[in-house]
Amino acid sequence: MRMTHTSLWTLLAASVLGAVSGAHAQPAPDSRAEVLALVEQSARDWTRGDIEAFCAVYADDALFVSPTGITRGRQAVLDRYRQRYPSPAAMGTLSFEVLEARVAPGQGPATAVSVTARWRLTYRDKPEASGLTLIVWHRTPAGWRLVQDASM
Amino acid sequence: MRMTHTSLWTLLAASVLGAVSGAHAQPAPDSRAEVLALVEQSARDWTRGDIEAFCAVYADDALFVSPTGITRGRQAVLDRYRQRYPSPAAMGTLSFEVLEARVAPGQGPATAVSVTARWRLTYRDKPEASGLTLIVWHRTPAGWRLVQDASM
Repeated sequence: MRMTHTSLWTLLAASVLGAVSGAHAQPAPDSRAEVLALVEQSARDWTRGDIEAFCAVYADDALFVSPTGITRGRQAVLDRYRQRYPSPAAMGTLSFEVLEARVAPGQGPATAVSVTARWRLTYRDKPEASGLTLIVWHRTPAGWRLVQDASM
Repeated sequence: MRMTHTSLWTLLAASVLGAVSGAHAQPAPDSRAEVLALVEQSARDWTRGDIEAFCAVYADDALFVSPTGITRGRQAVLDRYRQRYPSPAAMGTLSFEVLEARVAPGQGPATAVSVTARWRLTYRDKPEASGLTLIVWHRTPAGWRLVQDASM
Protein backbone atom coordinates (compact mmCIF):
# COMPACT_ATOMS: atom_id res chain seq x y z
CA MET A 1 0.00 0.00 0.00
CA ARG A 2 2.80 2.41 0.91
CA MET A 3 4.44 1.94 -2.51
CA THR A 4 1.15 2.37 -4.24
CA HIS A 5 0.52 5.68 -2.49
CA THR A 6 4.00 6.89 -3.37
CA SER A 7 3.52 5.96 -7.01
CA LEU A 8 0.19 7.73 -7.15
CA TRP A 9 1.66 10.89 -5.61
CA THR A 10 4.57 10.71 -8.05
CA LEU A 11 2.21 10.39 -10.97
CA LEU A 12 0.03 13.21 -9.67
CA ALA A 13 3.05 15.48 -9.12
CA ALA A 14 4.40 14.69 -12.60
CA SER A 15 1.03 15.40 -14.08
CA VAL A 16 0.66 18.74 -12.29
CA LEU A 17 4.22 19.75 -13.17
CA GLY A 18 3.59 18.78 -16.78
CA ALA A 19 0.44 20.87 -16.92
CA VAL A 20 2.21 23.86 -15.33
CA SER A 21 5.21 23.62 -17.64
CA GLY A 22 2.87 23.23 -20.60
CA ALA A 23 0.94 26.32 -19.56
CA HIS A 24 4.13 28.40 -19.35
CA ALA A 25 5.91 26.99 -22.41
CA GLN A 26 6.19 29.27 -25.42
CA PRO A 27 4.30 27.74 -28.31
CA ALA A 28 6.74 26.78 -31.06
CA PRO A 29 6.52 29.46 -33.76
CA ASP A 30 4.88 28.22 -36.93
CA SER A 31 7.29 29.76 -39.44
CA ARG A 32 5.29 28.67 -42.44
CA ALA A 33 2.06 30.21 -41.11
CA GLU A 34 3.84 33.42 -40.09
CA VAL A 35 5.32 33.92 -43.55
CA LEU A 36 2.13 33.02 -45.40
CA ALA A 37 0.26 35.56 -43.26
CA LEU A 38 2.77 38.20 -44.39
CA VAL A 39 2.30 37.19 -48.02
CA GLU A 40 -1.47 37.60 -47.63
CA GLN A 41 -0.99 40.92 -45.86
CA SER A 42 1.24 42.17 -48.68
CA ALA A 43 -1.51 41.42 -51.20
CA ARG A 44 -3.96 43.45 -49.11
CA ASP A 45 -1.43 46.30 -48.81
CA TRP A 46 -0.97 46.35 -52.59
CA THR A 47 -4.67 46.16 -53.30
CA ARG A 48 -5.46 49.21 -51.16
CA GLY A 49 -2.76 51.09 -53.09
CA ASP A 50 -0.22 51.20 -50.25
CA ILE A 51 2.96 50.43 -52.16
CA GLU A 52 5.14 51.57 -49.22
CA ALA A 53 3.56 49.01 -46.89
CA PHE A 54 3.88 46.39 -49.63
CA CYS A 55 7.63 47.07 -49.81
CA ALA A 56 8.17 47.45 -46.05
CA VAL A 57 8.78 43.71 -45.61
CA TYR A 58 11.66 43.70 -48.09
CA ALA A 59 15.07 43.59 -46.37
CA ASP A 60 17.16 46.76 -46.74
CA ASP A 61 19.49 44.82 -49.02
CA ALA A 62 16.89 42.63 -50.72
CA LEU A 63 17.79 41.36 -54.18
CA PHE A 64 15.00 41.30 -56.76
CA VAL A 65 15.37 39.69 -60.18
CA SER A 66 12.89 39.70 -63.05
CA PRO A 67 13.09 39.25 -66.81
CA THR A 68 13.84 42.98 -67.03
CA GLY A 69 16.88 42.77 -64.78
CA ILE A 70 18.29 43.08 -61.29
CA THR A 71 17.07 45.46 -58.60
CA ARG A 72 19.13 45.81 -55.41
CA GLY A 73 17.73 47.03 -52.12
CA ARG A 74 14.29 47.85 -50.75
CA GLN A 75 14.41 51.49 -51.84
CA ALA A 76 15.19 50.51 -55.43
CA VAL A 77 12.41 47.89 -55.35
CA LEU A 78 10.00 50.56 -54.10
CA ASP A 79 11.11 53.00 -56.82
CA ARG A 80 10.68 50.32 -59.47
CA TYR A 81 7.16 49.48 -58.35
CA ARG A 82 6.21 53.18 -58.14
CA GLN A 83 7.40 53.70 -61.70
CA ARG A 84 5.63 50.66 -63.10
CA TYR A 85 2.44 51.10 -61.10
CA PRO A 86 2.03 54.88 -60.73
CA SER A 87 -1.56 54.83 -59.43
CA PRO A 88 -3.96 52.61 -57.47
CA ALA A 89 -5.81 52.02 -60.74
CA ALA A 90 -2.60 50.71 -62.32
CA MET A 91 -1.95 48.55 -59.26
CA GLY A 92 -5.25 46.70 -59.42
CA THR A 93 -6.17 43.86 -57.10
CA LEU A 94 -3.32 41.52 -56.16
CA SER A 95 -3.73 37.93 -55.08
CA PHE A 96 -1.28 35.08 -54.56
CA GLU A 97 -1.99 31.44 -55.23
CA VAL A 98 0.68 29.76 -53.10
CA LEU A 99 2.08 26.70 -54.85
CA GLU A 100 4.26 25.74 -51.92
CA ALA A 101 6.05 27.15 -48.89
CA ARG A 102 9.29 25.37 -47.96
CA VAL A 103 10.57 25.67 -44.42
CA ALA A 104 14.31 25.23 -43.82
CA PRO A 105 14.72 21.75 -42.30
CA GLY A 106 16.04 21.13 -38.80
CA GLN A 107 15.11 21.44 -35.16
CA GLY A 108 14.01 24.62 -33.46
CA PRO A 109 12.26 27.59 -35.01
CA ALA A 110 13.06 27.84 -38.72
CA THR A 111 14.82 30.99 -39.88
CA ALA A 112 14.14 30.65 -43.61
CA VAL A 113 10.95 30.01 -45.56
CA SER A 114 10.74 30.18 -49.34
CA VAL A 115 7.45 30.52 -51.15
CA THR A 116 6.62 29.72 -54.76
CA ALA A 117 3.39 31.33 -55.90
CA ARG A 118 1.36 32.49 -58.85
CA TRP A 119 0.53 36.21 -58.62
CA ARG A 120 -2.50 37.73 -60.25
CA LEU A 121 -3.46 41.34 -60.84
CA THR A 122 -7.06 41.92 -61.76
CA TYR A 123 -8.55 45.18 -62.99
CA ARG A 124 -11.99 46.63 -63.54
CA ASP A 125 -11.24 47.83 -67.02
CA LYS A 126 -8.59 45.57 -68.53
CA PRO A 127 -7.51 41.93 -68.66
CA GLU A 128 -5.73 40.42 -65.68
CA ALA A 129 -1.98 40.03 -65.53
CA SER A 130 -0.39 36.97 -63.96
CA GLY A 131 2.97 35.38 -63.39
CA LEU A 132 5.11 33.30 -61.09
CA THR A 133 7.32 34.22 -58.17
CA LEU A 134 9.79 32.66 -55.77
CA ILE A 135 10.37 34.71 -52.62
CA VAL A 136 12.83 33.87 -49.84
CA TRP A 137 12.09 35.08 -46.31
CA HIS A 138 14.56 35.19 -43.42
CA ARG A 139 13.71 35.59 -39.75
CA THR A 140 15.61 38.66 -38.48
CA PRO A 141 15.65 40.40 -35.09
CA ALA A 142 13.17 42.88 -36.63
CA GLY A 143 10.87 40.10 -37.86
CA TRP A 144 10.53 38.22 -41.13
CA ARG A 145 12.08 40.00 -44.10
CA LEU A 146 11.86 39.23 -47.81
CA VAL A 147 15.52 38.88 -48.81
CA GLN A 148 15.33 37.49 -52.36
CA ASP A 149 12.61 37.77 -54.97
CA ALA A 150 12.53 36.22 -58.42
CA SER A 151 9.36 37.31 -60.23
CA MET A 152 8.29 36.75 -63.80
CA MET B 1 47.13 20.52 0.56
CA ARG B 2 44.81 17.65 -0.11
CA MET B 3 42.25 20.05 -1.57
CA THR B 4 44.87 21.86 -3.63
CA HIS B 5 46.06 18.62 -5.20
CA THR B 6 42.53 17.62 -6.04
CA SER B 7 41.87 20.96 -7.66
CA LEU B 8 45.04 20.78 -9.71
CA TRP B 9 44.23 17.30 -10.90
CA THR B 10 40.71 18.41 -11.76
CA LEU B 11 42.03 21.35 -13.76
CA LEU B 12 44.58 19.17 -15.52
CA ALA B 13 41.98 16.53 -16.35
CA ALA B 14 39.59 19.19 -17.69
CA SER B 15 42.37 20.72 -19.74
CA VAL B 16 43.39 17.37 -21.28
CA LEU B 17 39.77 16.47 -21.98
CA GLY B 18 39.23 19.87 -23.57
CA ALA B 19 42.26 19.45 -25.83
CA VAL B 20 41.17 15.96 -26.83
CA SER B 21 37.60 17.04 -27.57
CA GLY B 22 38.95 20.04 -29.51
CA ALA B 23 41.16 17.80 -31.61
CA HIS B 24 38.22 15.56 -32.41
CA ALA B 25 35.66 18.32 -32.99
CA GLN B 26 34.17 18.49 -36.46
CA PRO B 27 34.89 21.79 -38.17
CA ALA B 28 31.69 23.79 -38.57
CA PRO B 29 30.36 23.15 -42.07
CA ASP B 30 30.52 26.17 -44.36
CA SER B 31 27.06 25.94 -45.88
CA ARG B 32 27.64 28.77 -48.32
CA ALA B 33 30.84 27.22 -49.68
CA GLU B 34 29.27 23.77 -49.90
CA VAL B 35 26.33 25.03 -51.94
CA LEU B 36 28.43 27.24 -54.22
CA ALA B 37 30.68 24.25 -54.92
CA LEU B 38 27.58 22.31 -56.02
CA VAL B 39 26.50 25.18 -58.25
CA GLU B 40 29.93 25.18 -59.91
CA GLN B 41 29.83 21.39 -60.23
CA SER B 42 26.42 21.55 -61.89
CA ALA B 43 27.80 23.95 -64.52
CA ARG B 44 30.61 21.47 -65.25
CA ASP B 45 28.11 18.58 -65.45
CA TRP B 46 25.98 20.53 -67.93
CA THR B 47 28.93 21.61 -70.02
CA ARG B 48 30.16 18.05 -70.50
CA GLY B 49 26.63 17.12 -71.66
CA ASP B 50 25.68 15.13 -68.56
CA ILE B 51 22.14 16.34 -68.05
CA GLU B 52 21.40 13.51 -65.60
CA ALA B 53 24.20 14.59 -63.29
CA PHE B 54 23.05 18.19 -63.66
CA CYS B 55 19.58 17.19 -62.46
CA ALA B 56 20.74 14.75 -59.75
CA VAL B 57 20.95 17.53 -57.13
CA TYR B 58 17.29 18.48 -57.58
CA ALA B 59 15.08 17.14 -54.77
CA ASP B 60 12.63 14.42 -55.79
CA ASP B 61 9.82 16.92 -55.30
CA ALA B 62 11.64 20.04 -56.49
CA LEU B 63 9.46 22.83 -57.85
CA PHE B 64 10.75 24.68 -60.91
CA VAL B 65 9.12 27.82 -62.29
CA SER B 66 10.00 29.72 -65.44
CA PRO B 67 8.18 32.10 -67.78
CA THR B 68 6.89 29.03 -69.62
CA GLY B 69 5.27 27.55 -66.53
CA ILE B 70 5.55 25.19 -63.59
CA THR B 71 7.52 21.92 -63.52
CA ARG B 72 7.09 19.63 -60.53
CA GLY B 73 9.64 17.02 -59.48
CA ARG B 74 13.18 16.10 -60.52
CA GLN B 75 12.06 13.67 -63.20
CA ALA B 76 9.88 16.30 -64.87
CA VAL B 77 12.73 18.82 -64.65
CA LEU B 78 15.03 16.29 -66.33
CA ASP B 79 12.47 15.57 -69.05
CA ARG B 80 12.02 19.30 -69.68
CA TYR B 81 15.77 19.89 -70.03
CA ARG B 82 16.15 16.85 -72.32
CA GLN B 83 13.42 18.18 -74.56
CA ARG B 84 14.79 21.72 -74.71
CA TYR B 85 18.46 20.71 -74.97
CA PRO B 86 18.44 17.45 -76.94
CA SER B 87 22.19 17.30 -77.62
CA PRO B 88 25.50 18.44 -76.11
CA ALA B 89 25.75 20.95 -78.96
CA ALA B 90 22.39 22.43 -77.92
CA MET B 91 23.49 22.47 -74.28
CA GLY B 92 26.60 24.55 -74.88
CA THR B 93 28.87 25.78 -72.12
CA LEU B 94 27.11 26.81 -68.91
CA SER B 95 28.48 29.26 -66.38
CA PHE B 96 26.98 30.99 -63.37
CA GLU B 97 27.84 34.48 -62.16
CA VAL B 98 26.68 34.32 -58.56
CA LEU B 99 25.09 37.61 -57.51
CA GLU B 100 24.65 36.49 -53.92
CA ALA B 101 24.24 33.43 -51.73
CA ARG B 102 22.09 33.92 -48.65
CA VAL B 103 22.51 31.57 -45.72
CA ALA B 104 19.55 31.09 -43.37
CA PRO B 105 20.37 33.06 -40.21
CA GLY B 106 20.89 31.48 -36.80
CA GLN B 107 23.31 29.38 -34.82
CA GLY B 108 24.59 25.98 -35.83
CA PRO B 109 25.02 24.62 -39.34
CA ALA B 110 22.60 26.32 -41.73
CA THR B 111 20.06 24.09 -43.47
CA ALA B 112 19.02 26.51 -46.21
CA VAL B 113 21.03 28.54 -48.70
CA SER B 114 19.48 30.49 -51.57
CA VAL B 115 21.50 31.65 -54.52
CA THR B 116 20.71 34.39 -57.02
CA ALA B 117 22.81 34.14 -60.16
CA ARG B 118 23.06 35.08 -63.79
CA TRP B 119 23.37 32.00 -66.01
CA ARG B 120 25.08 32.05 -69.38
CA LEU B 121 25.12 29.51 -72.18
CA THR B 122 27.81 30.05 -74.78
CA TYR B 123 28.11 28.25 -78.08
CA ARG B 124 30.68 27.85 -80.81
CA ASP B 125 28.27 28.63 -83.59
CA LYS B 126 25.57 30.92 -82.23
CA PRO B 127 25.07 33.85 -79.86
CA GLU B 128 25.07 33.25 -76.14
CA ALA B 129 21.89 32.92 -74.11
CA SER B 130 21.66 34.36 -70.63
CA GLY B 131 19.18 34.90 -67.85
CA LEU B 132 18.65 35.08 -64.12
CA THR B 133 17.89 32.42 -61.55
CA LEU B 134 17.04 32.05 -57.90
CA ILE B 135 17.66 28.56 -56.50
CA VAL B 136 16.89 27.40 -52.98
CA TRP B 137 18.96 24.59 -51.46
CA HIS B 138 18.09 22.58 -48.35
CA ARG B 139 20.44 20.38 -46.36
CA THR B 140 18.90 16.88 -46.27
CA PRO B 141 20.14 13.58 -44.80
CA ALA B 142 21.27 12.73 -48.36
CA GLY B 143 23.16 16.02 -48.76
CA TRP B 144 22.24 19.41 -50.21
CA ARG B 145 19.27 19.34 -52.55
CA LEU B 146 17.90 22.00 -54.87
CA VAL B 147 14.27 22.31 -53.74
CA GLN B 148 13.02 25.41 -55.57
CA ASP B 149 14.18 26.98 -58.81
CA ALA B 150 12.92 30.15 -60.46
CA SER B 151 14.72 30.68 -63.76
CA MET B 152 14.14 33.22 -66.47
